[in-house]
Order: sequence, then C-alpha cells, then structure tokens
Amino acid sequence: MMKNFKMTIEYDGGDYAGWQRQKNRRTIQGEIEAALETMTGRPIRLHASGRTDAGVHAVGQVVSFRCDTGLSAATFQKGLNSMLGDAIVIRECREAGDGFHARFDAVGKTYHYHILNRPLPSVVHRRYVWFIRRPLDVSVMQQAADLLVGEHDFSAFEGAGSPREHSVRIITEARFSTDPDGLITFRISANGFLRFMVRNIVGTLVDVGHCKTTPAAFKEILGSRHRGRAGATAPPQGLFLMKVRYPDSKSGRAG
Amino acid sequence: MMKNFKMTIEYDGGDYAGWQRQKNRRTIQGEIEAALETMTGRPIRLHASGRTDAGVHAVGQVVSFRCDTGLSAATFQKGLNSMLGDAIVIRECREAGDGFHARFDAVGKTYHYHILNRPLPSVVHRRYVWFIRRPLDVSVMQQAADLLVGEHDFSAFEGAGSPREHSVRIITEARFSTDPDGLITFRISANGFLRFMVRNIVGTLVDVGHCKTTPAAFKEILGSRHRGRAGATAPPQGLFLMKVRYPDSKSGRAG
Repeated sequence: MMKNFKMTIEYDGGDYAGWQRQKNRRTIQGEIEAALETMTGRPIRLHASGRTDAGVHAVGQVVSFRCDTGLSAATFQKGLNSMLGDAIVIRECREAGDGFHARFDAVGKTYHYHILNRPLPSVVHRRYVWFIRRPLDVSVMQQAADLLVGEHDFSAFEGAGSPREHSVRIITEARFSTDPDGLITFRISANGFLRFMVRNIVGTLVDVGHCKTTPAAFKEILGSRHRGRAGATAPPQGLFLMKVRYPDSKSGRAG
Repeated sequence: MMKNFKMTIEYDGGDYAGWQRQKNRRTIQGEIEAALETMTGRPIRLHASGRTDAGVHAVGQVVSFRCDTGLSAATFQKGLNSMLGDAIVIRECREAGDGFHARFDAVGKTYHYHILNRPLPSVVHRRYVWFIRRPLDVSVMQQAADLLVGEHDFSAFEGAGSPREHSVRIITEARFSTDPDGLITFRISANGFLRFMVRNIVGTLVDVGHCKTTPAAFKEILGSRHRGRAGATAPPQGLFLMKVRYPDSKSGRAG
C-alpha cells in the first residue's frame, strides 16, 4: 500500500558533510536513506524542507517520503532510531496526507544561532557555539536585527555562487537573548531563507556588536543587495534548524 | 625562581583515556604536561586533586605544579590555552603558597551526574548524559539519596579491585534536580570519594528509581559494605568533577 510519511529529525551536523546525499561522503540524507533501504528492501528518496550545510545542526528538520509498504510510522521511527548512530534521532514519524511534500509545502522556518561570548571557551558547548572572546554589545546588535524584520531582498546576505533565484523573503522575528554564562542565542524566523543567509547575517551582526559597523550601516548593507558589503560568514557549528512550519491544511495528518 | 602554581581546569573526557598519564594513550595529564614541557623546556609533574576515569569530564579539576621559571601564571594560562586542543581549557592559573598541594590539601569535592530521562535521546546532550528511556521516580531516588548523607563506610560502592584503603567518607549533600526536558542532575559533595563511588551510587539509585530496589534496601546495601549488592556502574560520560574545596589557609593565594 502506497503511504506518504512525514518525519521530524534532530541531528548533530558536526560529523557530516551536510544534509544532502553525496557519493563517498557521510551525509544525514545518505545515512537515513541507507537505513530505510535496509528496512524496506528498496531505494527510498527523502525530501527535506531544505538542505542544511556541512556542520549545521537540526532540532526540527522535516522530511517526507513515499513508500509502498505494510510498515507503520511507529515501526519506521523505532527501526531507524535503532539503526542510526546516536547523532541522528527521528523525533516523530507519522503518515501524512497523500499530497504532503516537506519542501514544497513549507511556509516558514526558524533557526537559532548560538554565540558564546566570554573570556574563556567552554568544552561542553564547543561543538555547538561560535566562541567569541571580545565582548559584544548585544543591545546594538538587536537594534540592527530589528531592521531585518519585514519583506526585503536579502541578496546582500546570500552565499556567493548561490543559484540565481528570487531573493525576497519575509522575516517575522530576529531576536537576541542572553544567559548569565555568556551564551547568546539569536532566533530568526522567515517564510524562507537563502543559502548561508543566517550565517551571513550573524557574521555581519557580530561586526555591529564589535562596533565595526553601526545599525545605520547595517541597514545600508541590507539595502545594497551586494554580498561584498556584508561581514564574514559565521561558522556552521552555532546554527540549528529549529522548526519548519506548514499550513494547517498540510499539517501532515493522514487523510 | 621556584614557584608553585595552582590551576583550575575544565575538560571533556570523552576523547581521553582518563586523567592519569599513560604510555601511548591520550590522557589529560599527558597533554598538559607535554604542553608545559614545550613552554618551559623541562619536564613538569602535575599533581591533580585526584584522577578522573576514562570518559569522565571536569569543570573544576584542580592541579598544582612546581617550576623554576620566570614565566607568570597569566603566561602559563594563555600559553596552555593556545597549545591545548579545544577539549581542555585552563580556567584559572595563579601562584599558590609554597606548601600548596592540589591532592594532599583537598578537603572536599563536588560531582554532578547527568541523566537524560525521556522517550527519545538528545543528540546535543549525548556526550554528557546517561540516556535512560524508562521513566525514573526521582522522588524515591531522593529518599534513598538522603540516606547517604553523613559519615559512612562506602565499601559497598567502591570499585572492584580498588586498592585497599580507609573507606569511610562524609557526604554533605546528595541532591537531585530536574528540568522540563527530562534532564536530571544529581549533585553530590563529600570530603572525598572512593574510586567509582559516584557512578556506583548513581547506578544503584537508578535501580531505586525503576523500583527494582527500595530506599530501605538501598540502606541495607550501604550498610552491607559489600560491593556485590550494589547496582551497575553508571557510564562515565554523565559524570562531571565540578569543584574541589581547600581550607581557607590553603586557598591557593600566593605568599
């Protein structure tokens, strides 16, 4: 019987060459597809909400796949979790409506980016933060981040060499929070993101936090739509794909 | 000029064969001593408050070392932090009084043990927790833990094959706390610990939390002074040496 499944996946990207399947390299997609083939005896293609780059983590990546199988969603979840290493966890698996597609139906995503800003690094956090020793002025970073909210052409923050496409996105939140140990979390939500967009935004906001750039100059960079003006790309290990949003009608429920 | 230094060290024990120097194996002591030899041009012996076993972490391990050097404590800290990998951080280094010895002067230690108790593991926490799927009754574990406080012979929780020694210790706190994500932290402080004592206590308390043992039976196990009666040894990756205490007179201040 042909079924369509929706899975929510958590992974540590640190040991992988990104989401997308590649020959001769360990990728998240490659690992899960191989396990699915072992379970079902046939090749299965996963469709993710989007790729994550090498070293980037996910708490709530969403994928869909179609399969002619008698196996239940619960069996897939249990089987995959027992076969996959401890760096990938299937948090949820359920049958979705026949038309559900994790990429085409996604209407929004939320990312977190973690910065550790204090005199000394942390060994426990080191795989999941960008460690920055020099103090950051988070309040001025928030002023600049506020300018991101709304509909803009984000070409200035697009990865160099990205495939040409429509570069307008709507950012609905861009918010910093801090904790007493120096951990800074940047939460950003939009209807979609360009490649390297979050990491380029964070790299440029860090320049603002170090007073190398002002919020006014940040606004000009955004308006310039020119990648060369933005700051460096923040490293991948601080980035987490937290959540992918779907319309209620495509919520992934069966039927 | 002969100086005596006190250092506080954080490390991720996951990639090391424990604290103590061993031939042909990566150990924390071995890495730091090698870096000190590079800095000073002579072999230097570190004295730690105590060994930590393979896979066990530290947030506040304390060591002392004597060295005839013109280098300052700040230079040692900076130099070591730049030479050591990101899994070891020298949190503090300062000159200590001439007689200070990190092991002989220690009067107390605090450990944390982390358990993740929920249906699904966490990829981000996996190197630092004992993942236990089956629900634990933390309130009954706390009842048993309360019985540990005070002066007891802890032979029942001593590692098999440990060198014979005085097995009486005074536990001053043994306290569970929980968070909404299923993370359980067990905090235990004493004037000293036997080898594997914390991990054997935690393994036995988990039996209590799973109702395989009662607090009353736990009390009998403690009183038996017989290792065979206690539960399994909890795995190393959940254990953190948090703090080592010294008398005020030996607080490590110079002079």
